[in-house]
Amino acid sequence: MDYQAYFSTNREQHLKELGDLLRIPSISALSEHKGDVLKAAEWIAESLRQAGMEAVAVHPTAGHPVVYGEHLHAPGEPTVLVYGHYDVQPVDPLNLWETPPFEPSIRNGKLYARGATDDKGQVFMHIKAIEAILKQEKELPINIKFCIEGEEEVTSPNLPSFLETNQEKLAADVILISDTALMAPGKPAICIGLRGLCAMEVSVFTANTDLHSGTFGGGVPNALHALVSLLASLHDEQGRVTVEGFYEGVHELSALEREEFVKQQFDEEKLKRDLGLTELYGETGYSFVERTGARPTLELNGVYGGFQGEGTKTVLPKEAHAKITCRLVDDQDPQATIDRIERHLNKHLQPGATLKVRATEKARAFTCNPEDPMLQKAADAYESVYGTRALFTKDGGSIPIVETLSRVLSAPAVMMGFGLPDENLHAPNEHFNLENFDKGLLTIVHYLKSL
Amino acid sequence: MDYQAYFSTNREQHLKELGDLLRIPSISALSEHKGDVLKAAEWIAESLRQAGMEAVAVHPTAGHPVVYGEHLHAPGEPTVLVYGHYDVQPVDPLNLWETPPFEPSIRNGKLYARGATDDKGQVFMHIKAIEAILKQEKELPINIKFCIEGEEEVTSPNLPSFLETNQEKLAADVILISDTALMAPGKPAICIGLRGLCAMEVSVFTANTDLHSGTFGGGVPNALHALVSLLASLHDEQGRVTVEGFYEGVHELSALEREEFVKQQFDEEKLKRDLGLTELYGETGYSFVERTGARPTLELNGVYGGFQGEGTKTVLPKEAHAKITCRLVDDQDPQATIDRIERHLNKHLQPGATLKVRATEKARAFTCNPEDPMLQKAADAYESVYGTRALFTKDGGSIPIVETLSRVLSAPAVMMGFGLPDENLHAPNEHFNLENFDKGLLTIVHYLKSL
Repeated sequence: MDYQAYFSTNREQHLKELGDLLRIPSISALSEHKGDVLKAAEWIAESLRQAGMEAVAVHPTAGHPVVYGEHLHAPGEPTVLVYGHYDVQPVDPLNLWETPPFEPSIRNGKLYARGATDDKGQVFMHIKAIEAILKQEKELPINIKFCIEGEEEVTSPNLPSFLETNQEKLAADVILISDTALMAPGKPAICIGLRGLCAMEVSVFTANTDLHSGTFGGGVPNALHALVSLLASLHDEQGRVTVEGFYEGVHELSALEREEFVKQQFDEEKLKRDLGLTELYGETGYSFVERTGARPTLELNGVYGGFQGEGTKTVLPKEAHAKITCRLVDDQDPQATIDRIERHLNKHLQPGATLKVRATEKARAFTCNPEDPMLQKAADAYESVYGTRALFTKDGGSIPIVETLSRVLSAPAVMMGFGLPDENLHAPNEHFNLENFDKGLLTIVHYLKSL
Repeated sequence: MDYQAYFSTNREQHLKELGDLLRIPSISALSEHKGDVLKAAEWIAESLRQAGMEAVAVHPTAGHPVVYGEHLHAPGEPTVLVYGHYDVQPVDPLNLWETPPFEPSIRNGKLYARGATDDKGQVFMHIKAIEAILKQEKELPINIKFCIEGEEEVTSPNLPSFLETNQEKLAADVILISDTALMAPGKPAICIGLRGLCAMEVSVFTANTDLHSGTFGGGVPNALHALVSLLASLHDEQGRVTVEGFYEGVHELSALEREEFVKQQFDEEKLKRDLGLTELYGETGYSFVERTGARPTLELNGVYGGFQGEGTKTVLPKEAHAKITCRLVDDQDPQATIDRIERHLNKHLQPGATLKVRATEKARAFTCNPEDPMLQKAADAYESVYGTRALFTKDGGSIPIVETLSRVLSAPAVMMGFGLPDENLHAPNEHFNLENFDKGLLTIVHYLKSL
């Protein structure tokens, strides 16, 4: 079967259809777009039906619906669950878009629209790949299920319970996700690790009122002093987190894993130039890609207290606040990490100050084994289309739902992304390079047929 | 001469006159009141003339004018320079005033109006004391000069150069200032120490843009980490400032000085209750009154950087800021202190971060010797009227102009205040307890006659 010819012939029609999907402003964060989000769900459902999927349904949740569809006619063969999302990010600032976000436009081989790469374009490719196989071969070599949600951009609040409830219906041997990026043009990558996350707000309180620094300075606790001394106590001079038990569950990198990082040939000098930094900084003994890909962190995202205006105000502030997030790896437990940090802070708190810690987000890290045949076959599929084998990479970011999917369904997740790192996800002028649209369709078909 | 009878007889007239002065909204900070500030200066000048002062003039400066007047007919006797100010603080929030700030009102023996105690009421007492002596005795036992400025509430920007230019004209043996408070009703105090001040803004910069904490967290410098670790390094666990040379110029408290502090019988338990604090905090080895009265401090007045909104933002901020003030004592040099702190911060700065320190205010500490006869006679004067000897106290606040006056004119400053600590200076419902107006007039007369 000549899939290249098939996709060439149908390219115009496919892009026309994708354009229709991209025209729906399915912004999940804004309640005024609730109807549009539903419209996009129904569009996906209809598209699945046309591709030949069965039992297609738009399942309501407490928030936006989940679209399900299946094709289960290959007994004894593996079952693939395709996960993706049809909701998109907000579009402000609107004035920075060269063409309107919901009027798709192709320029220089790139399709511009909100959702073009994240994730409507990539979900659409899976539907069209299935449709292609069914049209060409009348049957699928595997069993397939689609689970396409509408709340990924608002941290998937209702998907975990949907997964728990429908565990049997969604059961699969591999979860296939196209919502990430290649390393660079022509350099495919399969993400085998995502860091987990725990987020918290830390507040320190001292007197019941702000005080004059002349009359009281030096004589009473200052909430800012108490806070900065707590925050500074969280790392040692080697950039390691000093919280007792913080590294519990973190596996030391194996020689093989370190080799994979070296293979990325990451250019730290270029990064320094790009960011205007005289030096990088972090835990000693690890490279930048290791620190961001495989090591946990504790970062201050915001600190504030006292006077921020112009000039001087001789005040001793009665309260001070910090926002902290940790990126977690391997088996680190988010709640245990928050508890450990709270214990550390209480232990180091200055006399006369009180502390409040509020946990705001929790997600475990995701990792999978690159030796798994499901992942090795994905690397083969990339190689057959791109002519170069995909690297197995670890990403510093967190996509909490990937860990949930993999854990609840007890299946490896293959993150087979076709975006590029500079395609303005979550920013004005989001776009999708159509070269990867074309190659991605072929890669998906190759992968599904290889299982 | 029966001054008590004299002031009783003239009390109504005096309060009527003071009311006229208090009706002038001479707010120096607000340019729309420039005309009112001038009007108050002219009112003071006219009042000095009527009291019998000579060479009275309203001297223009780059800002609001200085009112000068003299009476120099006691050759061989000491010369007293009375310093005070006729400008007042702003009055907002206006809705919290029980009666309008510029409509003087007497309730329960207290005169309510902006400037009643700070400092129009107290300046007026000196004018009326002189007038009383001249009316009763036709001559003054000493030489006297008045220097009443209109910019005290905006940190006296033009007075230092006026003093330098008119050093000879203003030369005196003692500077007499009534702009402070008794310790408590019936408990007079002479302030013999004011802390100096240096203020600065500290900024830390890292990358040229805010970065995503997933992609970059743990791999690059975080401006907030760099800042809090710098700020935490400024004190040790005993609450002492760790900056090299910071305590240079600070005199250890003598046994006599410590005794004076003990005599104040300051109630630390009550302070804790009032402020809702479980513990006081500061340099170990010193009491609260010693720490705030006689020890230098380094306080954080504001710290800010990164995300302050609701929820979580996974950002590594590219910059972070702090506002710092030090209270200085004895011979500590404000500029040298700023330089030392900058050196300390540079020494402790994390790799990859850059630092900017901007000095915003500088003032030396003021101290004078309680053994000085000019101060001992002031204590005698209080004792003769209040029946109890004034305590010599050190105040934690800073009144930069007192040090300047004393230094430029090479004379001791006697801070003979008649306010009370709870008279709402700089706040709504400022008032002046008329018991201290009456006793103050007698105390001033007694003091001038004793020199």
